[in-house]
Amino acid sequence: MRTWDELVSADEARRRFAAAWMPRVRHEEVRTHEALNRVLALAVHSPEDLPPFRRSLMDGFACRAADIAAAPTSLRLVDDIAMGAAALVPVGAGEAARIPTGGMLPEGADVVVPIEQADASAVEVRILVALTSGRHLIERGEDVRAGSELLPAGRLLRSPDVGALMGLGVLRVVVYALPVVGIVATGDEVVPADSTPGPGQVRDLNSYSLAAAAQSLGAVPRRWGIVPDDAEAIHAIARRALDACDLLVFSAGSSVGAKDLVAGVIQRLGSPGVLVHGVDIRPGKPTVFAVCDGKPVFGLPGQPVSVLNTFDQFVAPVIRRLLHLPDHVDTVTARLVQSVRSADGREDHVRVALESRDGELWATPILGVSAMITTMTRADGILVIPARAPGFEIGDPVPVRRIH
Amino acid sequence: MRTWDELVSADEARRRFAAAWMPRVRHEEVRTHEALNRVLALAVHSPEDLPPFRRSLMDGFACRAADIAAAPTSLRLVDDIAMGAAALVPVGAGEAARIPTGGMLPEGADVVVPIEQADASAVEVRILVALTSGRHLIERGEDVRAGSELLPAGRLLRSPDVGALMGLGVLRVVVYALPVVGIVATGDEVVPADSTPGPGQVRDLNSYSLAAAAQSLGAVPRRWGIVPDDAEAIHAIARRALDACDLLVFSAGSSVGAKDLVAGVIQRLGSPGVLVHGVDIRPGKPTVFAVCDGKPVFGLPGQPVSVLNTFDQFVAPVIRRLLHLPDHVDTVTARLVQSVRSADGREDHVRVALESRDGELWATPILGVSAMITTMTRADGILVIPARAPGFEIGDPVPVRRIH
Repeated sequence: MRTWDELVSADEARRRFAAAWMPRVRHEEVRTHEALNRVLALAVHSPEDLPPFRRSLMDGFACRAADIAAAPTSLRLVDDIAMGAAALVPVGAGEAARIPTGGMLPEGADVVVPIEQADASAVEVRILVALTSGRHLIERGEDVRAGSELLPAGRLLRSPDVGALMGLGVLRVVVYALPVVGIVATGDEVVPADSTPGPGQVRDLNSYSLAAAAQSLGAVPRRWGIVPDDAEAIHAIARRALDACDLLVFSAGSSVGAKDLVAGVIQRLGSPGVLVHGVDIRPGKPTVFAVCDGKPVFGLPGQPVSVLNTFDQFVAPVIRRLLHLPDHVDTVTARLVQSVRSADGREDHVRVALESRDGELWATPILGVSAMITTMTRADGILVIPARAPGFEIGDPVPVRRIH
Repeated sequence: MRTWDELVSADEARRRFAAAWMPRVRHEEVRTHEALNRVLALAVHSPEDLPPFRRSLMDGFACRAADIAAAPTSLRLVDDIAMGAAALVPVGAGEAARIPTGGMLPEGADVVVPIEQADASAVEVRILVALTSGRHLIERGEDVRAGSELLPAGRLLRSPDVGALMGLGVLRVVVYALPVVGIVATGDEVVPADSTPGPGQVRDLNSYSLAAAAQSLGAVPRRWGIVPDDAEAIHAIARRALDACDLLVFSAGSSVGAKDLVAGVIQRLGSPGVLVHGVDIRPGKPTVFAVCDGKPVFGLPGQPVSVLNTFDQFVAPVIRRLLHLPDHVDTVTARLVQSVRSADGREDHVRVALESRDGELWATPILGVSAMITTMTRADGILVIPARAPGFEIGDPVPVRRIH
C-alpha cells in the first residue's frame, strides 16, 4: 500500500508552484464594445483630440471675455449656432452668438454666458455678469490629447473605458486572451449527468461545478468528459486536453490508492511534472500541483466539496494570473455564532453560512462530510483555521472567503 | 425660456419611482450548466436521493460494527467491491469486504474501517480499532433526500449549486429572464462611433458606456442607435424600443432647453409617464424618472460622466430588481488625501482615484467637468457629499462606490 510520502503546507505548495511556473502570454484583438471586463495587453494612445473642437458646456451666448468685463453690457447677436454644425460666423468685438450645450464655439469667442445670466432679444443680448476667459467651455483636446496614453496596458476595461475608447473611434483593442481551462473527470463510478446511474454509479457533478467556478472567474471552461480509472485512457485525454487548453484540472484520482492514477499520468505529461502531491489542508489533502511543458496542471480530490475548495484555493489564483488580474480574494469579516475547533493539526477549511443581524455579519459553521455537496450549496463562504491553531471562539471576528 | 420647475432630492426621486412601479416577472427555462449567476424563479426539489446508495468515504473494509467492538479482531474477506459496480455479496457476521472510497456498501455492512487501521491478507483482514456503526460512510439520501427542496426560488446560482443540480440529473431550471435594457442616444451632433465626426460633431460614446454598464450588472443591453433632436423621430424609436425591452434609457435631451425633447416624448409613451424631472444632484440634475405602461423609463443627461453616474445611482438598482438580485452597492471605505467641498447645496458626486498605502485605502478627488470622460476612466469610484453638507476634511474616512 502506498501512503503519503510528504504533506506540504498550502503556502509551501503555492511557493513551489510559483517557482516552477511562468505565465505564458496570448493576445487577441477584440471589438471594443465587446471588451468589457477584458484586460488590455497593449496601452491605447488616443488617435485624436477629444473633444475635437472647443465646446460649450451650457446653453447660452458665446462672446469675448474682454467685452463683458464691465457687465452689464449689450452685445449684438450675429449667429445662432446649431448642434452638430460648424460655427461659421466669427464673433468679433461687441458681438455674441447663441450656442447650445455641446455646441461648437465660433472663432473669436472665448467664453460662454449661460442663458440664466443674460437677457436676449432677436438681435441683441444683454450680458448680466462678467466672466473670465474659458468659463463654461471645454477646450479642444482638454479631455484627451491626440497621442496621449488613454489607457495603460494591464487595464481591466470598465464601462467608462469602453465609452471613452468608442468616443475616440478606437473600435478594436488588443487584450489578453481568455485562458481555456480544461476539465477532466475521472472515476469508474462516474456516469454522465444526463444518464441514469446504475447500482454503485453516480452522476458527474464535479465537471460542472468546476466549469462554473472557472466561468465565474472569467475564464473559458472546456469539459473533456469522464475517463475511467485507467492510466492509458486518462493519459490519452490528458495529452489532447493539455495541447488544447491553457490550464488543466483533473477531478478525482489524485489520492494514493490503487485506483488513484492521476499523479502518475501528470508526471508523464511534461516537465517538470508533479511539484506537490498532498497538501496539509482539510478538505483537500489529495491535491496535485504540476507544471507540464509550461502549463499549469492540477489534480484535485474527487469529493464535491474538496474539489471546489482546492480549486478556489489553488487554481483560481493561477487563472487570475492568466487573466492578468490582480490577485483578489473576496473576503468579508463575520463573527462566529459558535466556536469552531480544528479536527487535527491540518489547516482546516470550514464552510459557513452568513447572516446579517443588526448590520453585522455572523457566520454559522456547516457540519457534514466533504462528500456532501449540500454543505457547499448551503454555505456562503469558507473560514480557514490555520494549521496547528486550536480554532476560534464564539463571537470571534473571522475572515470568510465568499463562494461564487 | 423653460426652467426647472422643481428639483427633487435623489431619495425623493427614488421614492416616487418605487411608489409607481411594480416589477414584471418573466421566466425562462435554461440548461442548468449554462445557468451560473442566474436566479431561480422556481424552487428545485430533488427528484432522487443523493447519494443514490450507501457509500464509503474511505479506502478500507466494509463490515459490521458489532463484529469489531472488541477489536483487534479478524474477519473473513468475502468480496472486493469495484468502483461503479453493485456490491452483490452481502457481508455476514464475521465477514468483511474490501471497498474503495466512493464504493457501494454491501448489504449487512454498517461501518467502514480505513486501510490504515487494518492489516489484510488475501482472505482475511485484521481490524485494529473498534468503530461505531455509520463511521466512514454516507447514507443513501444523506446529502439530498428525494422530494426535499434543494434550492429555493430566488436563489442566485453559484458554482456548487450548478454542480449539485447536475449531480441530481436536474438538467434544466426555470430562472428569471435577463432584462433587456434599451438604450437610445439622442442629439443632432452625435454621429456613429465608426464614422469620422465633421465640424461640430462628436462620436456616440454614451450608447457604449451605458451598454457596458448594463452588461456589467448581468442585463442584456440593446442599442437603438442615434436619433436627432426631433420629437417625432425620438418617439418613433422609443415606441419600438419600449415594446421590445424591459427598461428604456435615453442619453441626452433630458434637460429643459429648446432641444431637450426627451421628457416630452416619455410623457406621451405610456402612463403614468414622467414621475420626476430634475434631481438635486451634481452631476446629474437633468434626469427623468418615468414608468410607461409598467416599464421603467429613464432620461439621463448627455454628459458622459453624468450619464454613467445617474445610471449607476438610479437605473442600476432597478435593473437589479428586474434581475431579482438583492440591492447591493459595491462600497469601500477610504481616507481622503485632501478635503472636498460641495460647490453648492446639491448632493455632490465626486469622482475619486483609490490607492492602497500600507494596507489602507486613500481617495484622491479627480477634478474636471462632467463633459470629460477621462475623469471617469481615471476614477476608481464615486464619493457622495450629502445635500447641504459642507464636505469632508482631509483624512476623513468616506464611503466610495466602486465603478464597474
